[in-house]
Amino acid sequence: MEQQAYSPTAELHEGKAAKLLARYETVRAQTEAICAPLHVEDFVVQPIVDVSPPKWHLAHTTWFWEAFILEKYFSEYHLFNEHFPFLFNSYYESLGERWQRTERGNLTRPTVEEVYAYRAYVNKHMERLLRTNNISDELVQLVELGLNHEQQHQELLVTDIKYILGHNPLYPAYSKQPEQVQCGVSHPMLFLEMPEGLYDIGHQGKDFCFDNELGAHKVYLHAYRIADRLVTNGEYLEFMTSGGYTDPDHWHMDGWEWLKQQPIKAPLYWHKENGRWYNYTLAGYRPVDNNEPVTHISFYEAAAYARWAGKRLLTEFEWEAACRIYGYMDSSSLLDGGMFHPQCKRESSKQLLGDAWEWTNSAYLPYPYYTQAKGALGEYNGKFMINQMILRGGSCATPESHMRLTYRNFFQPDKRWQFTGIRLGESIKND
Amino acid sequence: MEQQAYSPTAELHEGKAAKLLARYETVRAQTEAICAPLHVEDFVVQPIVDVSPPKWHLAHTTWFWEAFILEKYFSEYHLFNEHFPFLFNSYYESLGERWQRTERGNLTRPTVEEVYAYRAYVNKHMERLLRTNNISDELVQLVELGLNHEQQHQELLVTDIKYILGHNPLYPAYSKQPEQVQCGVSHPMLFLEMPEGLYDIGHQGKDFCFDNELGAHKVYLHAYRIADRLVTNGEYLEFMTSGGYTDPDHWHMDGWEWLKQQPIKAPLYWHKENGRWYNYTLAGYRPVDNNEPVTHISFYEAAAYARWAGKRLLTEFEWEAACRIYGYMDSSSLLDGGMFHPQCKRESSKQLLGDAWEWTNSAYLPYPYYTQAKGALGEYNGKFMINQMILRGGSCATPESHMRLTYRNFFQPDKRWQFTGIRLGESIKND
Amino acid sequence: MEQQAYSPTAELHEGKAAKLLARYETVRAQTEAICAPLHVEDFVVQPIVDVSPPKWHLAHTTWFWEAFILEKYFSEYHLFNEHFPFLFNSYYESLGERWQRTERGNLTRPTVEEVYAYRAYVNKHMERLLRTNNISDELVQLVELGLNHEQQHQELLVTDIKYILGHNPLYPAYSKQPEQVQCGVSHPMLFLEMPEGLYDIGHQGKDFCFDNELGAHKVYLHAYRIADRLVTNGEYLEFMTSGGYTDPDHWHMDGWEWLKQQPIKAPLYWHKENGRWYNYTLAGYRPVDNNEPVTHISFYEAAAYARWAGKRLLTEFEWEAACRIYGYMDSSSLLDGGMFHPQCKRESSKQLLGDAWEWTNSAYLPYPYYTQAKGALGEYNGKFMINQMILRGGSCATPESHMRLTYRNFFQPDKRWQFTGIRLGESIKND
Amino acid sequence: MEQQAYSPTAELHEGKAAKLLARYETVRAQTEAICAPLHVEDFVVQPIVDVSPPKWHLAHTTWFWEAFILEKYFSEYHLFNEHFPFLFNSYYESLGERWQRTERGNLTRPTVEEVYAYRAYVNKHMERLLRTNNISDELVQLVELGLNHEQQHQELLVTDIKYILGHNPLYPAYSKQPEQVQCGVSHPMLFLEMPEGLYDIGHQGKDFCFDNELGAHKVYLHAYRIADRLVTNGEYLEFMTSGGYTDPDHWHMDGWEWLKQQPIKAPLYWHKENGRWYNYTLAGYRPVDNNEPVTHISFYEAAAYARWAGKRLLTEFEWEAACRIYGYMDSSSLLDGGMFHPQCKRESSKQLLGDAWEWTNSAYLPYPYYTQAKGALGEYNGKFMINQMILRGGSCATPESHMRLTYRNFFQPDKRWQFTGIRLGESIKND
Repeated sequence: MEQQAYSPTAELHEGKAAKLLARYETVRAQTEAICAPLHVEDFVVQPIVDVSPPKWHLAHTTWFWEAFILEKYFSEYHLFNEHFPFLFNSYYESLGERWQRTERGNLTRPTVEEVYAYRAYVNKHMERLLRTNNISDELVQLVELGLNHEQQHQELLVTDIKYILGHNPLYPAYSKQPEQVQCGVSHPMLFLEMPEGLYDIGHQGKDFCFDNELGAHKVYLHAYRIADRLVTNGEYLEFMTSGGYTDPDHWHMDGWEWLKQQPIKAPLYWHKENGRWYNYTLAGYRPVDNNEPVTHISFYEAAAYARWAGKRLLTEFEWEAACRIYGYMDSSSLLDGGMFHPQCKRESSKQLLGDAWEWTNSAYLPYPYYTQAKGALGEYNGKFMINQMILRGGSCATPESHMRLTYRNFFQPDKRWQFTGIRLGESIKND
Repeated sequence: MEQQAYSPTAELHEGKAAKLLARYETVRAQTEAICAPLHVEDFVVQPIVDVSPPKWHLAHTTWFWEAFILEKYFSEYHLFNEHFPFLFNSYYESLGERWQRTERGNLTRPTVEEVYAYRAYVNKHMERLLRTNNISDELVQLVELGLNHEQQHQELLVTDIKYILGHNPLYPAYSKQPEQVQCGVSHPMLFLEMPEGLYDIGHQGKDFCFDNELGAHKVYLHAYRIADRLVTNGEYLEFMTSGGYTDPDHWHMDGWEWLKQQPIKAPLYWHKENGRWYNYTLAGYRPVDNNEPVTHISFYEAAAYARWAGKRLLTEFEWEAACRIYGYMDSSSLLDGGMFHPQCKRESSKQLLGDAWEWTNSAYLPYPYYTQAKGALGEYNGKFMINQMILRGGSCATPESHMRLTYRNFFQPDKRWQFTGIRLGESIKND
Repeated sequence: MEQQAYSPTAELHEGKAAKLLARYETVRAQTEAICAPLHVEDFVVQPIVDVSPPKWHLAHTTWFWEAFILEKYFSEYHLFNEHFPFLFNSYYESLGERWQRTERGNLTRPTVEEVYAYRAYVNKHMERLLRTNNISDELVQLVELGLNHEQQHQELLVTDIKYILGHNPLYPAYSKQPEQVQCGVSHPMLFLEMPEGLYDIGHQGKDFCFDNELGAHKVYLHAYRIADRLVTNGEYLEFMTSGGYTDPDHWHMDGWEWLKQQPIKAPLYWHKENGRWYNYTLAGYRPVDNNEPVTHISFYEAAAYARWAGKRLLTEFEWEAACRIYGYMDSSSLLDGGMFHPQCKRESSKQLLGDAWEWTNSAYLPYPYYTQAKGALGEYNGKFMINQMILRGGSCATPESHMRLTYRNFFQPDKRWQFTGIRLGESIKND
Repeated sequence: MEQQAYSPTAELHEGKAAKLLARYETVRAQTEAICAPLHVEDFVVQPIVDVSPPKWHLAHTTWFWEAFILEKYFSEYHLFNEHFPFLFNSYYESLGERWQRTERGNLTRPTVEEVYAYRAYVNKHMERLLRTNNISDELVQLVELGLNHEQQHQELLVTDIKYILGHNPLYPAYSKQPEQVQCGVSHPMLFLEMPEGLYDIGHQGKDFCFDNELGAHKVYLHAYRIADRLVTNGEYLEFMTSGGYTDPDHWHMDGWEWLKQQPIKAPLYWHKENGRWYNYTLAGYRPVDNNEPVTHISFYEAAAYARWAGKRLLTEFEWEAACRIYGYMDSSSLLDGGMFHPQCKRESSKQLLGDAWEWTNSAYLPYPYYTQAKGALGEYNGKFMINQMILRGGSCATPESHMRLTYRNFFQPDKRWQFTGIRLGESIKND
């Protein structure tokens, strides 16, 4: 990952190092806090390939510090266990052989207890390293990357735990608190205008970002409109009841084939019982709330909904440009809010930040000046730039300090287990 | 399961009931003893479809008592949990919908602790029931069936635990004790003669047996010879080094196709390191002992070995007839011996009982008078009588009180995770 | 293929050689006659792996003469085309690399015309060879084998052509003649008794047979009954309408899984239109005739039907013993009869010969004295002796001169594209 | 397909109608000319799902006229055969049920002769219709669409025929003429500069185009360079010999997984014999010519090559903008040239038109003002706008009158059977 823009000053004084250490400790503790409500059994399984066992996330994020920092910057460091690099490397071809992804859920050893010991061991060494007086810029950058990497896995932990518990017929709640509040109000969907013109896209400034956001550049946009909120469950139910899943005219060819291969008739976690829709949330199983944003839908469903509604999805550039103008305000519905579910629109909010990742109609492709670094860091983002669609805006499982206006998330168009949602847009035609 | 032959006398007195209760307690405790060395994580996973999570075995065997006995014979019985029949029914179509077999390893709840509570709850009720003065013959038969069912799962627990631990790259030992002893002696293989004639096949008498052993009948056998011991690792290695896995002439067509689809070049659990063969045993990873019986091979491999050796596998009838004449002696290598691995031939033994299940060249088919009962008990055996081959003799994972001369085990010809082995035979041609 | 029993006398005189030549010419011409009604396009395709293109059958049977006889016994023989052995070897591992079976339907070249030229070329050389004065016994045996091999492919040609035409939505008839006659009469099913005792099984005498029929031996059978005719469409319809395909209690586990994977609700080639059943026959598409034997059913369906009917399938030994006693009479419904469809029972017939192959409950396994020859001939039968069930009796697509009382046909239990049918039996219990 | 831009004048006089008729006849005859060298057998097969039988192309293009024009605009028209719409609809959900795509190669009927009769019948009616005095603009547009549709299938016919003949181990030539000429000269690759700025993209004017090219709009491009020719076989061989297929660092993750699943080590149709590379061309099997453009490579291979070469692929916008400036000259290597293979660069050419479709790094997505029509015409392009990459420039199999500067071709990134190639580009960074 090439970090052209981000360059911490050389005169990094003790205060900054102390802050970095504090952030390290906060982020690492946050990962474990997410796992606190689990039973040992919950840490082990992998019900689908996309979902990794929580135990694996705990160990893999720890391996990341070991492989990218401790082995290189801590001269006397010894591996906690010589087999762990093989077991907990995710996809870095340049870092050697690794355990097959599809088999993560078959590893009962190391135990959860041993994995926590591994975390403690690496924390101890990282903390010792970060207390050193003389920390190089390069190391600071890597620590930032490691923290952001760990935060990405915090989001995956939440969504993977949801999959594990939500596909158990006993539907155990992850956390009963806080109580889900029924939304009282339904907001009409308004469309905000955006004029045609040249817009700046991509990350600027010295703060951390991933390499796929770098290379600030211009994009010319024709005039368009953007909805002031996410599509709700109630609106999505209208699509469903008016034949949304049975009329091929709404769907991409690949989406229609995807539908034929599996009995999908509703968002993930929805179940119909006696004519009424329920959904599993991390607070438990409950009736669907019509005013909440719809979530756990694939790109195919998002696009079909938009076509059915006579609108379209936005491009990631339209989304980013609108945020720069209309504001990208805080939201209670990020991971830190502890709701673990998208919340209803509040009066003042446009739901651009948090709640649910918004599928865009942009494919995940490099920005004009993107260059993929050689070696393991280059594998972080660049090699995924095919067959995936961009999502923007973060979700109720995204840590607040991890988000940015320019953040580019990406998944294959059939994926539904993330907190994904829909924002509508449309072109303004000049006659 | 129709139990024509087995009919406990009506005047079953207290002594008998007490014995039944004692056996119930012994068998149930034995199941838990097998699981004692495991960590919680080991109870959860299902690395291949054939292997069930130990937790599932603990619960399924408990459900069996609930579904076949308590719900019918214990009038005030309440289910421990109303979802458990759905979760822990294995394959009984007549007992309602059930959780998909392939998804057993994705269930983290109920927890191991809850499963043990389930066992205790069912035990408490079963014990109360068995203390009743008046136990019907029918109930005694069902209890016998339940005990034998649980013993079958004890064997599966051992082989499934072996698969789970033995496919973890850390190769954790299940139990370091007792120490594996290197066999010092190699015995020449002798062939015992059996004259042609009519032989009795199948179970006789009033003791318990499965319905597939019933219908004692006559079979005419032409003269043949049977080896006086199992094939050893050393002999199997000769087959391997002389191109056993690369010359199609030794193999069934289906066996050859099976080989092409996966990189099989040795028995399961064997690994070659620096030119030497090692195998994983429940006592850990160690060099292959040439004088031990070869085990963890498929029918395809057993048949290919036999053809390569210029011999053949025996039919199940030839095997049973020979046992009736040459004796079916005790062996230290049953589950009760606690070795968890096939042992070398001792001077006096013909290895007919224990060590490794012997693949026969008989398909699993009904005996002439077999009738499959209606309903759930009829599903126990009859519906599997296609596409499987018979194995005889028991293994180091079979409980001693579970075995019989007439016992018919059966698996698909590609299965290798049971303790399976090879005994050679040949026809005596009359010129 | 070891031909222990069949040994033509050394003093084979011209008359015999002439007869052999005449048979060669008859059999070879018969293969081509079967293909006469086809269009060029019909020769090329392979709609499922089991079905080979007619063009391939024409060429493969020709290659067989080339590979097993001409290359060895005709010293100046030159291959017609050096690529053809690669293209037209079926499954003989010992005869070198070969074109993948699944890709047979993708070969447009050689053209049909070239394949016929190949046949003519080989015929010319075979005829020259067979006109030689001095033909060895070994060669005569091989010619017999080649003729029987070609006749097996005649049956496959008929069933493969039926599959190709019968799965085309235009349902083209193969041959309109002769007219199918509606059966007027329904015969009650009678059961013939067979006493317990020792019976002779397997081929005896000097006539040709396949190696899997050799090794005449004794089998002890307990008393049983055998139906005097095949199950009819009308009887099978009763099974269907009384929930035959929806009650798992009738089915083997594997049969039930097989049903779940595909929408099978009737025999192959049956279609329901406006509440009435039709089936495709080689004479065209027409209403199902209730009095005809049911055909195109899998072993799973045959076994489920028998269990539903309160009977069972016979073993191949019971079938052969009954034929020896009750007679194995001629039938109009062999290939030579030209009906290309199983016919209704006539008064005098027990339908033991022809009409439809009868699924037995015997697995395809070797007889006691069976030895598989080394090399290519050994691959003819022996390597298939696993995972298949025996069928007996021949069908409307079997050449009359190809059949024998001891003939053992075999297929996997899910196969339906052959003319397969059901004969019921039952054990007589001695009380 | 919405044709906003293309609007034939109302006063369409006889001259124009005559020209349309003449073009109809030319295009239809061209389709049949492509098939002239085939044998009947070649028309039938479908070796992979992507490849349709030539017979199917002949019939499907004919059905297109029937379904979109004759049934609607020719009042007395009767279907040639009522089953053909079911058999020859490709993917139009709104036009009813259809024969499964994967089964196209199993249809032996209708015969080739019947398909040609179908073509003649439709031609006769189309010609009658086009001779009518009064042809509406709407009809003219549909005829244009039908002609372009047929031309698309002409390209597919060439590539599908190549696949069918080129995967036959006999490697039959499609056409020996014209002789392939060895290129004598190797041209250094030069990079042409393009300044940053706003560029016009998309179709303008009244000529025919597909709906995916409509909505002329502006795109802002940062400065870049574009190669003046395609990558050659010789250059690609360097990539291969320097480990191009074995170093994951060059590859997208999905490309690397794709490589692991199949033994791809070279472009499609390349074979190594005795250390030298050969490739199958429509003129036959021959040594690879180093100076020819490399073709039959997937997007994954194109992108890996570019990364290995230290360059990148261009976006479709960069490609189109460059063509507008540097010219989009004629090439001898379109379908009309009759070479059926990409040709070496001539002095004057930049190979922007013809030879090989150039993979771009743009995903197939809608232009800003794109609207997908309702109904069957809307299915023509819009529903494919996901999971595919854009190719630009046409190939040696593209009819000249079918091409345009703005033409957007698209395929999944793993597809190789089209004539696909590589053009390199790079960004110019402003320091």
